[in-house]
Amino acid sequence: MSAMDDARPPALEFWFEFASTYSYVGAMRIEEECARAGVALRWKPFLLGPLFTEQLGIQDSPFNVHPVRGRYMWRDLERLCGKHGLPWRKPSAFPRRSILAARAACALEGDPRQGECIRSLFRANFASDQDIDDPAVVGSAVRAGGGDADAVLAGAASAEAKAALRANTERARASGIFGAPDCLVGSELFFGQDRIEDAIAWATSSRPAR
Amino acid sequence: MSAMDDARPPALEFWFEFASTYSYVGAMRIEEECARAGVALRWKPFLLGPLFTEQLGIQDSPFNVHPVRGRYMWRDLERLCGKHGLPWRKPSAFPRRSILAARAACALEGDPRQGECIRSLFRANFASDQDIDDPAVVGSAVRAGGGDADAVLAGAASAEAKAALRANTERARASGIFGAPDCLVGSELFFGQDRIEDAIAWATSSRPAR
Repeated sequence: MSAMDDARPPALEFWFEFASTYSYVGAMRIEEECARAGVALRWKPFLLGPLFTEQLGIQDSPFNVHPVRGRYMWRDLERLCGKHGLPWRKPSAFPRRSILAARAACALEGDPRQGECIRSLFRANFASDQDIDDPAVVGSAVRAGGGDADAVLAGAASAEAKAALRANTERARASGIFGAPDCLVGSELFFGQDRIEDAIAWATSSRPAR
Repeated sequence: MSAMDDARPPALEFWFEFASTYSYVGAMRIEEECARAGVALRWKPFLLGPLFTEQLGIQDSPFNVHPVRGRYMWRDLERLCGKHGLPWRKPSAFPRRSILAARAACALEGDPRQGECIRSLFRANFASDQDIDDPAVVGSAVRAGGGDADAVLAGAASAEAKAALRANTERARASGIFGAPDCLVGSELFFGQDRIEDAIAWATSSRPAR
């Protein structure tokens, strides 16, 4: 590793859940924000459901379980999408089953179109109100993101993608994650799409571990 | 009302709870941020406990009930205080009983030293680890904020301050509040100290209601 490599800030891991509204807002802008700051980005899809069940004892989104929070969230999402210029349509089903999309994102690991395909999958749920548990929807979203739909759907069904998603969810739990999205810089956790800037500032002001 | 008055942005109400760590971070900077933007600020102390009991069925802070969230919050507070240059000492008791401090803040309504006294009360809890349920601590904090300690303590014990705090908590509930701090601009609610900038932007881009 050269001295120049050593001077690069640590990578930022973006932990997200395809069913999560605030993950949508974060996912749509994280790559651009990291690129602007010269911070390497790693996409980390995981499943929030098992963590909610374990930590809160619920089988549904907290925004459904707690309607006062839910009402706020839906209004807030409209405003945030307006602020960031993102398309938005309140999905007719919430939360949507996200395991297929998350496995597809795992199968896209290392593919230069991973980010574009992830954004396309999020748009399917939150801008086009499509069921991202449907392989046809996932294939079409991957294609729109420039990916190879057949290869990604086959990859999503593979034992490797299933194991990768389980491992991600386990690492999310071990990292102290309790919601989504999150940015993880080394062991520093930043919860919420509104803390992306703080996480990037943390990465750029940190020296890499030696 | 003159045309110049009509052109002013609507006031921003800052809803806060003296026991709340994130309210501390927000309270320490809201007045300066509003002043910079030319937005009128109204301090709105309320009690979060009754809302948590009603909405979540808990008698304690969610950060105690859910230890994963709690661990994150304490680390996050250290970082946020570092970012904003705020003094910070993790309180030895959490959450502290805040009703006396909240009534004192109500009694300070209309006093030009209200903001400074509120910040001083927050510092007592979160920078000096003092029990803000103790009248001596409240009196001393009010004095440090330039207020009349005897008058404020007498005011806090008055039926008016008690009724004002009850009315605030009732209005918080009716406004859809479920946590603290919050900014309310007209009927637009912004939850969390990290949304102060969004709330101010909303106020400055809004025309006053006619």
